[in-house]
Amino acid sequence: MPIVLGDNQYGKAETHVVRVTKSGAEGRTHQIKDLNVSVALSGDFSASHLSGDNSKVVPTDTQKNTIFAFASESPLGEIENFALRLARHFVGEFAFVYRARVSVEEFPWARIQVDGKPHPHAFVRDGSEKRLAVVTCTDDAAWVVAGLSDLVILKSTGSEFWGYPRDRYTTLAETRDRVLATALTARWRYRAAMADWAVSFAEVRRVMLETFAVKHSLALQQTLYAMGEAVLEARPEIVEIRLSMPNKHHFAVDLSPFGIANDNEVFHATDRPYGLIEGTVIRDDAPEPGLAW
Amino acid sequence: MPIVLGDNQYGKAETHVVRVTKSGAEGRTHQIKDLNVSVALSGDFSASHLSGDNSKVVPTDTQKNTIFAFASESPLGEIENFALRLARHFVGEFAFVYRARVSVEEFPWARIQVDGKPHPHAFVRDGSEKRLAVVTCTDDAAWVVAGLSDLVILKSTGSEFWGYPRDRYTTLAETRDRVLATALTARWRYRAAMADWAVSFAEVRRVMLETFAVKHSLALQQTLYAMGEAVLEARPEIVEIRLSMPNKHHFAVDLSPFGIANDNEVFHATDRPYGLIEGTVIRDDAPEPGLAW
Amino acid sequence: MPIVLGDNQYGKAETHVVRVTKSGAEGRTHQIKDLNVSVALSGDFSASHLSGDNSKVVPTDTQKNTIFAFASESPLGEIENFALRLARHFVGEFAFVYRARVSVEEFPWARIQVDGKPHPHAFVRDGSEKRLAVVTCTDDAAWVVAGLSDLVILKSTGSEFWGYPRDRYTTLAETRDRVLATALTARWRYRAAMADWAVSFAEVRRVMLETFAVKHSLALQQTLYAMGEAVLEARPEIVEIRLSMPNKHHFAVDLSPFGIANDNEVFHATDRPYGLIEGTVIRDDAPEPGLAW
Amino acid sequence: MPIVLGDNQYGKAETHVVRVTKSGAEGRTHQIKDLNVSVALSGDFSASHLSGDNSKVVPTDTQKNTIFAFASESPLGEIENFALRLARHFVGEFAFVYRARVSVEEFPWARIQVDGKPHPHAFVRDGSEKRLAVVTCTDDAAWVVAGLSDLVILKSTGSEFWGYPRDRYTTLAETRDRVLATALTARWRYRAAMADWAVSFAEVRRVMLETFAVKHSLALQQTLYAMGEAVLEARPEIVEIRLSMPNKHHFAVDLSPFGIANDNEVFHATDRPYGLIEGTVIRDDAPEPGLAW
Repeated sequence: MPIVLGDNQYGKAETHVVRVTKSGAEGRTHQIKDLNVSVALSGDFSASHLSGDNSKVVPTDTQKNTIFAFASESPLGEIENFALRLARHFVGEFAFVYRARVSVEEFPWARIQVDGKPHPHAFVRDGSEKRLAVVTCTDDAAWVVAGLSDLVILKSTGSEFWGYPRDRYTTLAETRDRVLATALTARWRYRAAMADWAVSFAEVRRVMLETFAVKHSLALQQTLYAMGEAVLEARPEIVEIRLSMPNKHHFAVDLSPFGIANDNEVFHATDRPYGLIEGTVIRDDAPEPGLAW
Repeated sequence: MPIVLGDNQYGKAETHVVRVTKSGAEGRTHQIKDLNVSVALSGDFSASHLSGDNSKVVPTDTQKNTIFAFASESPLGEIENFALRLARHFVGEFAFVYRARVSVEEFPWARIQVDGKPHPHAFVRDGSEKRLAVVTCTDDAAWVVAGLSDLVILKSTGSEFWGYPRDRYTTLAETRDRVLATALTARWRYRAAMADWAVSFAEVRRVMLETFAVKHSLALQQTLYAMGEAVLEARPEIVEIRLSMPNKHHFAVDLSPFGIANDNEVFHATDRPYGLIEGTVIRDDAPEPGLAW
Repeated sequence: MPIVLGDNQYGKAETHVVRVTKSGAEGRTHQIKDLNVSVALSGDFSASHLSGDNSKVVPTDTQKNTIFAFASESPLGEIENFALRLARHFVGEFAFVYRARVSVEEFPWARIQVDGKPHPHAFVRDGSEKRLAVVTCTDDAAWVVAGLSDLVILKSTGSEFWGYPRDRYTTLAETRDRVLATALTARWRYRAAMADWAVSFAEVRRVMLETFAVKHSLALQQTLYAMGEAVLEARPEIVEIRLSMPNKHHFAVDLSPFGIANDNEVFHATDRPYGLIEGTVIRDDAPEPGLAW
Repeated sequence: MPIVLGDNQYGKAETHVVRVTKSGAEGRTHQIKDLNVSVALSGDFSASHLSGDNSKVVPTDTQKNTIFAFASESPLGEIENFALRLARHFVGEFAFVYRARVSVEEFPWARIQVDGKPHPHAFVRDGSEKRLAVVTCTDDAAWVVAGLSDLVILKSTGSEFWGYPRDRYTTLAETRDRVLATALTARWRYRAAMADWAVSFAEVRRVMLETFAVKHSLALQQTLYAMGEAVLEARPEIVEIRLSMPNKHHFAVDLSPFGIANDNEVFHATDRPYGLIEGTVIRDDAPEPGLAW
C-alpha cells in the first residue's frame, strides 16, 4: 500500500503589476495596463515534496521578479501575448518545468474627460468587469483561453420559466415574465496560440451582450447556449466556450397586503441561494483541449 | 453610580430593491433603479431596552415592507427624494420616532447596445461606483447628504511628494514624479432639502474628476482640498463636502538587479498598508450641520 | 462666501505586523502577536492642503516604520499599551500633531496541540473574532477604548418578539420563540488610560457571552442593554460601552406544503436585509468622552 | 462545422440552512447544524439549452425546498450522510438526472460557557474554519469527498528555504529560519461511501495539525506531502488527499536603519502576491476517482 505523490503545481499568485507606457511630447501621454498575474508550474518537483530538496524549485519570488521584468518590455501588448511570453519563458528556461500556466486578470480603465477631451494621464476605473487570459505552455505546445468575469447583466422582461417537472417538493409558480440577471463568467478556447486578441475579445463581448439582450429566454440554459453559439458562429478562431451564469434572483414583492398591485415593477434582489447554470458550447471538430483548461 | 441608556438607534439595513418603470408601446421600454436601502430610527425606545416592552418599536420587517411599498410609487425619482419620502414617513407616522435616517446606495446600469442602439429592457452594470444619499429627518427638519463611493481614479504622473519632516524613522525617498491612485468616497451636504439632485450629482462628479486630473499634486491632501473647493465653487447649493481618499500605493519596482531601468513604467500595486487621507471642505457661512451626518 | 478647510486627519492604515517573542531553551518557545495597526493624525496640516507645503506632514511611510520599530520592543504587551506608546510618540515627537489615534485589531491564535501538549512554536488561528483597541492622545490627555468585533453568537430559543406597533405596512407575525443571532461588535471606554487590559478584556467578553446566553430576550434591544449593563456592573474601570448587533434573521421554513411540521427546527439563514440594533450603555457619572470616540 | 452542447450542469447554490435538534426536558437542550448547501445536477438537459423546453429541468427552487425538507429529518447526521441522502434523491427521483453533486459547508459552533458549564441553547461561532463534504451520485455509484478550508496555521520557526535554482531574475536570499503560514484547504476521497465520518474528520484534522507542527520544513511542498502522507497512513478508509496551501508571506522587517536588530521577531504580513502550493497524495492502489472530483 505505498503512498505516492500525485498531481501537483505551485507558483506565485496575484502579482499586481501596473504598466505605464509613455508617448508624445515629453512622454506626457500615457497608457496603463493594470494586471493581476498568477503563475503555476508543473514539473519534476518530487524531490522537494519527498525530501525538501529544492534544486528544481524555482522560487515563487523569482517568478514575481520575472513578471515585473517582462512587464518592462514595450509594448506589453495584449494579455494573451504577455502570458504567452511568460509561460514560454518558464518552460524554456527550466528543463524540469513541464508545464507553465499563466493567468492574467486585467482591470479596465478609461481616460478622465476634461472639457470633453480625454486626459493624457488621468484615468478612472471603467467597470467592475475583468478581462481574463489563461495560457498554458509545454516545451512544444501552447493553449490560449481568454475570458471575462463579473459582467453583470439584467433583462427586466423577455424571460419566462415554465413547463418544468413537478414533484412533491415543487412550489414554484410558472412565470411568463420575469427578471433575468446574472454575473457572467465566460472563458473561450482558441484554435491556435495566435489571433488578433483585442479584436476577438471585443467581438466576443459584444456578441454575448447582444445575444443576451435580444434572445427571448425560456430558460437561462437557453440564453447561455444561444450566447455561446453566437460566439462560435461569429468567431472562427474560437473552438469552445464555457459559460457560468449565476441566476441572481429578483423576486416580485407581494404588495397586495398594502393594497398595491405589483405588475413586475418592484423586486427584491436576493444574494443567496442562487441558481448556478454552467455550460459548454463547442465545435464538433474542435481539437482536443489538451492542457488548455 | 446608576447605569443608563445612552444614544441608540435601530432599523432595517440593506434592503435591496430593484424598481422597473415601464413606458412606450406595450410598456416594453424600461428604466431600472437598483437600490440598497437602510433605515435607522432614533426615538423613545427605552422601554424596549429596559424591560422588553416593544410597544414603540416599529419592526424592522415593517420598515422593509415600507421601502418596497414606497418603491412602487411612480416615478420613484432621484434617491434623495425617495429617501426624503421614507424618512418623513417614519417620523410622521410614529410620534415616538424622533429621527429617521435613510441611507441609499444606487448601483449604476447602462443599456446594452444592440447594433449601436440602446436596448429597451436589457442592461449592463455600469461600473463599481455607487451613488449615495443619506437623508435625516425630524418632525420639522430635514438634512440631505449625497455622495459617491468606490470611484477609483489614478494619475500616472503629475504628482510629487517631498519636503516632509524627517525623524529617525524616516526612510522614504522624496519624489518629483509618482503614481497617485485612490478609491474616492465623497459625501456632500446640501444647504436645503431641495435641489436638482440629478444635475447636482453629475456636476459634482464631473468637477471632482476634472480637478483630480488637472491639478498638479504636491500632496494627496492638496488634491483633496482642490477637489472639495472646486465642488463648492461650482455648486452653490452645497455647503460642505467630506472626502476620504485611501492612498493606493504604486511602488516603482527596482529592476536594476536585472539590468533594466525603470523610469516610472513598472509598478507594484499593493493592498495594505495604505495611506488614508480624510478631509472636509466647508463654506464659512455654512449652516450648522445639525443631524446631517 | 469663503471656503475653508474643516476637520481633517491622515495616517497609515492597516499595517499588518506579526511579533514573535522568544523564550526558553535556545529561544524555541515562542509567543506571537498578530496585529493590524492604523494611525490617524490631526494637526496643523493646512499648508499641505492649501499649497502642497508638506513641512508638517509626517509621511505615512514613517508612521509604518515607527509601528514596526515599536513592535520590536519587548514585551510588546497588550494592544492598549502598544497603542498608547505609539500615539504618545506621535503627539510628543511632532509639535504640529495635536491628536494621534492608533487603532489596533488583534487576531487570536492558539497553540497547536501535539499529543495533548501545546506546541512551542506552531499555532492555529483561534476564531474569526478580533480584539480591538482605539487609543487617542493629545499632548496632555489619553483616552482608551477597547473592544471586540465579529463575535458571532446565537440562541436557538429563549427569544420572543411581540407587542410592537402595527401600521398598514405591518405583516410580521408575533413570536414567542425565535432564533436570535448576531455578530457582535462592542467597544468600551475606560475611565483612565491605565487598567489591567488583559483581565478587563477577558472579563468583558465573558460577561457579555453569559448575559447573552441567560437573559431571556423580549427584544434584541433588551439583550443589548442587559449585556452592556452587566459589563458596567462587573467592571468599575469601564464607564461606557457601545454595542452594535445586526439581527441575523433565521426564518423558520414553511414545510407544510410537503406535509412536514416545522416546530422551529429548520431555519433559512439570510444575509440581507438584516436588522441593525445599536445602543450605548453608560454610567451617570461617566467623565466626558472628550476625543475618545 | 456544427456547434454542439458540451458538458453542463446546474443547480441551486448556497442554500443556508440551520437545523436545531431538541432533546431533554421540555426540549430545552439544543444542538445546531449550520450548513451551506449547493446542488449541481447533470443529465439530459439539451432540450432546455437548444429550445427552452424545460420538461426535464428540475427547478432550482425545488432543489432548495428539498434541502429544507430533508433537513427536517432527525437526526440530520454528519454532512456526508446528509449529502448522500440528497444526491441519491435527485438521481433516484428523476430519470433524466444522471449525476447529482451535493456540496456542503459546515460552520462550527461551540456552546457558550456559563459559570463553567455549557449552556443548553446558546452558542458561539467556533472559528473561521469550515468543514466540507462533496458527494457525487449516479444511479449506481456514489463518491464521497470530505475536507476543510480556511484552517489558518503558522509556524514561527522550524522552516527553511534554500538550495533552489538561480537565474538572472533571482534575488531571494536563502533562509535557514523563516515563518511558515498558510490557510489550508484539504479535501480527501474515501474508498467507499460509508465510514465513520465524524471520527475520520476529527482524526484527519488532528493528524494534519500535528504534522504541520512537528515536521521540520525545508519547503512548503515537503510539509504538504508530509501532511498528506500522515493522513493516508493513519486513515485506511481514505485513498487520496488534495491539499492547497497559499504561502502567506511574513517578511522580517529591516529595522537596521533605526539601529535595531531584528532576529526574526518583527514581521510584515502581506496579502498579495502569495505563493500557492497545491499537491495530491494518493495510494498506489487507489480506485479510479470516477466522478468524485
